[in-house]
Amino acid sequence: MIDIEKKMDSLITRLFPICRSITGAGVRKTLRIIGNEIPLTIYEVSSGTDVFDWTIPDEWNIKDAYVKDDKGERVIDFRSSNIHVVGYSIPFEGKLPLDELKDHLHTLPDQPNLIPYVTSYYEKRWGFCLSHNEYVKLIDGLYEVKIDATLEPGSLTYADLVIDGESDKEVLISTYICHPSMANNELSGPVVATYLATHLIGLKNRPYYTYRFVFVPETIGAVTYISKHLEHLKKKVVAGYVVTCVGDPGSFSYLQTRQENTLVDRVTLHVLKYSGQKYKVYPFIDRRSDERQYNAPGVALPVGSLMRTKYASYPEYHTSSDDLNFVTPEALNGSMEMYKRCIQVLESNRIYNTTVLCEPHLGKRGLYPTLSKKGSSTTVRMMKDLIAYSDGKNDLLWVADKVGCPIWRLSPLIKILVQSDILELIDD
Amino acid sequence: MIDIEKKMDSLITRLFPICRSITGAGVRKTLRIIGNEIPLTIYEVSSGTDVFDWTIPDEWNIKDAYVKDDKGERVIDFRSSNIHVVGYSIPFEGKLPLDELKDHLHTLPDQPNLIPYVTSYYEKRWGFCLSHNEYVKLIDGLYEVKIDATLEPGSLTYADLVIDGESDKEVLISTYICHPSMANNELSGPVVATYLATHLIGLKNRPYYTYRFVFVPETIGAVTYISKHLEHLKKKVVAGYVVTCVGDPGSFSYLQTRQENTLVDRVTLHVLKYSGQKYKVYPFIDRRSDERQYNAPGVALPVGSLMRTKYASYPEYHTSSDDLNFVTPEALNGSMEMYKRCIQVLESNRIYNTTVLCEPHLGKRGLYPTLSKKGSSTTVRMMKDLIAYSDGKNDLLWVADKVGCPIWRLSPLIKILVQSDILELIDD
Amino acid sequence: MIDIEKKMDSLITRLFPICRSITGAGVRKTLRIIGNEIPLTIYEVSSGTDVFDWTIPDEWNIKDAYVKDDKGERVIDFRSSNIHVVGYSIPFEGKLPLDELKDHLHTLPDQPNLIPYVTSYYEKRWGFCLSHNEYVKLIDGLYEVKIDATLEPGSLTYADLVIDGESDKEVLISTYICHPSMANNELSGPVVATYLATHLIGLKNRPYYTYRFVFVPETIGAVTYISKHLEHLKKKVVAGYVVTCVGDPGSFSYLQTRQENTLVDRVTLHVLKYSGQKYKVYPFIDRRSDERQYNAPGVALPVGSLMRTKYASYPEYHTSSDDLNFVTPEALNGSMEMYKRCIQVLESNRIYNTTVLCEPHLGKRGLYPTLSKKGSSTTVRMMKDLIAYSDGKNDLLWVADKVGCPIWRLSPLIKILVQSDILELIDD
Repeated sequence: MIDIEKKMDSLITRLFPICRSITGAGVRKTLRIIGNEIPLTIYEVSSGTDVFDWTIPDEWNIKDAYVKDDKGERVIDFRSSNIHVVGYSIPFEGKLPLDELKDHLHTLPDQPNLIPYVTSYYEKRWGFCLSHNEYVKLIDGLYEVKIDATLEPGSLTYADLVIDGESDKEVLISTYICHPSMANNELSGPVVATYLATHLIGLKNRPYYTYRFVFVPETIGAVTYISKHLEHLKKKVVAGYVVTCVGDPGSFSYLQTRQENTLVDRVTLHVLKYSGQKYKVYPFIDRRSDERQYNAPGVALPVGSLMRTKYASYPEYHTSSDDLNFVTPEALNGSMEMYKRCIQVLESNRIYNTTVLCEPHLGKRGLYPTLSKKGSSTTVRMMKDLIAYSDGKNDLLWVADKVGCPIWRLSPLIKILVQSDILELIDD
Repeated sequence: MIDIEKKMDSLITRLFPICRSITGAGVRKTLRIIGNEIPLTIYEVSSGTDVFDWTIPDEWNIKDAYVKDDKGERVIDFRSSNIHVVGYSIPFEGKLPLDELKDHLHTLPDQPNLIPYVTSYYEKRWGFCLSHNEYVKLIDGLYEVKIDATLEPGSLTYADLVIDGESDKEVLISTYICHPSMANNELSGPVVATYLATHLIGLKNRPYYTYRFVFVPETIGAVTYISKHLEHLKKKVVAGYVVTCVGDPGSFSYLQTRQENTLVDRVTLHVLKYSGQKYKVYPFIDRRSDERQYNAPGVALPVGSLMRTKYASYPEYHTSSDDLNFVTPEALNGSMEMYKRCIQVLESNRIYNTTVLCEPHLGKRGLYPTLSKKGSSTTVRMMKDLIAYSDGKNDLLWVADKVGCPIWRLSPLIKILVQSDILELIDD
Repeated sequence: MIDIEKKMDSLITRLFPICRSITGAGVRKTLRIIGNEIPLTIYEVSSGTDVFDWTIPDEWNIKDAYVKDDKGERVIDFRSSNIHVVGYSIPFEGKLPLDELKDHLHTLPDQPNLIPYVTSYYEKRWGFCLSHNEYVKLIDGLYEVKIDATLEPGSLTYADLVIDGESDKEVLISTYICHPSMANNELSGPVVATYLATHLIGLKNRPYYTYRFVFVPETIGAVTYISKHLEHLKKKVVAGYVVTCVGDPGSFSYLQTRQENTLVDRVTLHVLKYSGQKYKVYPFIDRRSDERQYNAPGVALPVGSLMRTKYASYPEYHTSSDDLNFVTPEALNGSMEMYKRCIQVLESNRIYNTTVLCEPHLGKRGLYPTLSKKGSSTTVRMMKDLIAYSDGKNDLLWVADKVGCPIWRLSPLIKILVQSDILELIDD
């Protein structure tokens, strides 16, 4: 395991046991741990605050929960897995016969050995989740139920980090932090985002774009974040990603923005095309996560999502199997590398103009083999193509697609041609 | 036979025997009969009137016509079929030997038992049509010919009916009434148009669009109609159809407007796509009927034509076989239903805007199952898609195509979302 | 051999032996011979003159060159083929052992019986080219080398010819004259261009466009020509061709302009599509000749290249095999015919508007069979299509593509319709 993989592994291992929800101590603890790696700013928004069409709910915290049989044994025990309790369950204490208890139990009959992950944020209920195999073993009798939770006014917690670039145009990297012990969906997202941020902070040269990292509870957190920053985001964000489901060893997949042909779509498809790997592209209609908020009409930020196997399309999704065995450090790091490549392409994708009329004399600048023979080197050819297509209108991605090569093969040539006063960068 | 089919059958049966032409008593009688079903306004335009590049011709009326052999027997008899006479034949009376008579006889050697339908509107001639089988039986001798017709100054007759909608934007429904005993091409058109009008008149709620029904002799009638209403039509008409060939049991076909991607093209192809039936699409270049006039440069009304088997592509076309056996009440009614569906889609196809920023909270409006589990209902999904894509620019047809479902599945959801103050109708 | 083929054959045969380079006596002699056929204007630009990024080099002239073995025999002899000497070799006289001599020898090991064509315009060197078979026969010893050439201030020579049309909008026909004894690449180009010019000069009616024929040394000559005429060319040129590789018997190929959908692209692909011959289309990225200069950013003239087998894609290219056996008079003339057809299409491709509202009455103009029967003639149909699609916006090429026939089938009908006051030419 290389160094960065060890770091990612260590972070995800620390975060996994925490019982997160859309509010409460779990989110705070998670952000505190991530905050040890990168300089997050953490925000609290009080319960009851209106955020667009929504209201910040009461804060939920849980200490313990169980169902005991009539011998006093815990047949369902929060301490063994925090997903045994339906997320946002209201406090409860009482005794129920099995048939009444069953109204509060959730199982997956088709995956009988897995515990499902269930929440009820906006209707007050309580409930437990368990494997169907355990469920069928429950025998008639009176069960003692306790959910030692609180659901009281408090606040919703989120964090961000802005890494300044040369330009005030922003790239948004959003990830979510509201699922309890779920490794791929969701912890892979915050972990990759964290080390992507450390990578950008550590760059020798400031990036061109400003990068805004956002760690929010899914949906309500993204809505809250947008409501606090709407005008700024609308003015500045040129591209964005929701980072999630990036820890499994599956192939990459990309979920497009609503417009389906924005900069981030072009960049990501370019990277995937030249990755040499198999990948899948999903249209926006298949969205399920915070890209819903960012791309919503009236908000209209061009935010896509680069994942490995897409949420809801792998059997471990939202079950007790989405655990640390399912996620690998190699997959996490491979995902980060893919995001780094996307950022590299985004940063490279500028517009150039050829300043020389007709073809420039490459030879007098030492850029050309002086003896003309049959055949000419690929590099010279690429330089000529860059010059021929750089008309101050086509961006470099467009030119790379014409030339039929990845943008990162062109970037060193661009540098030479700019230094040679053949191309000039157009400030857009 | 259901009620509406009986009505259609009764109307076509009454209209079939009438000897129509582009002018004359036949047209008037036809419009009078149709006028018993719907409140038509009937117009007369005098012979000699210039209409754009054309002149209203003299009025043609015919009482009788025959060819008698030397025994005095009618070997060709107008009374047995009005298509025995070439349309617009000049009056004639005389005796001719067979070889001279033959210059005036028209047959279909490839369909030897059928009488062809032939006209000569703009060159003065007379002639008879007969089956090739009868033709070859004619023996040498002197034949007595009489065409008891008049071709004199009179007028051209047409009619229209305007059904007001909420908007003054118009949908044009044009059909023609100038063929004698031809059932599919043409009576199926006027019959379907008539009951489409009664349907619109009978609607509980006024339609959104204003519907203009036009009953005209083909070509000269359409030219006349356009010449009388050009500026109005150019300002108001947003979509239109020429209704013809809608009575045979063949599959549907659609002939596109000249631009080939106008509203009526999109609407009709959407309806056909989700009809579950086989269908054919013809480009505008295959036009043959009054869409030629409506789409002409300088007129440029977006008028397509939804047919069953297209004119000139079925063997009965313009022969004595295009009769009441070829046309069925079920086919007529099925065509009307298809037109009704097109109108429904036209009426539904509005532009909506999502008024809520970020995703609306469906739960608090009772529009969402409150317990989040694996899987989510198709209806909720469709509501979310409607919200996500309704950005005040895309029309509902565009959204339906994105969602991949017929617009009529979305309409009830639109209603709920408008009532819930999530979507608003954009007045275009 | 028909007359024009004899002329082309005679011209190419006279031009072939001349030792051309980018400057010098060979170019002048070539232009003088061509000037006997068409009224060229010949220009000289002094060595040292700056033309955009380039400088006119010293003028190169050569009298003789050889390599003699120690018996005094010419083992490489300029007199037997002018491509034995590397183009622009500096003068040299001396004795060298074989191993030193070899640094100055160029061969084609994969085509061992052919002499390669090599130049070194912008780095001062000398060298010889020979077949690999001859090369391997060279035995150790001292060789006497002489290159009796001069490389001194002089001038670069080029020529043009402008044939005035009705319009001052120009079609550019550019070809190059800087290769020594190379028949297909390059002499086929100047030969076809020459007789294309005589064809245009000989037309009874003045053409619509003004035609500008340009004979320049490749690259440096095109750069020079553009630098002298940039503003004029940018204002006037609507289409252009680089004429080269048009003498071999291979199929046609077309190299697109940079924008890939300009007028000349549309015209040429239309001609090729209806030529009944196989052909190939190359995107601009495969460019290699003077279209590089004409299409360069900042110059941006829409210049394509209609060739037979494209340069660098036939084995004879830039070898001693690209000779008068490889080029045939029939192929030269066939290429000229194809260019003539392109010019005819360019000239025909105007925009027309239908002046009559609704369909015109063709019958009263004698353009229509007056007896309407099943079926209607193709000509009438085409007239109707021309009328229906000529809306003052679509050009005739667009209409021809809709109708699905070559533009030259429509042109005679256009003439009739204009004479009949149905269509009018829109002056663009």
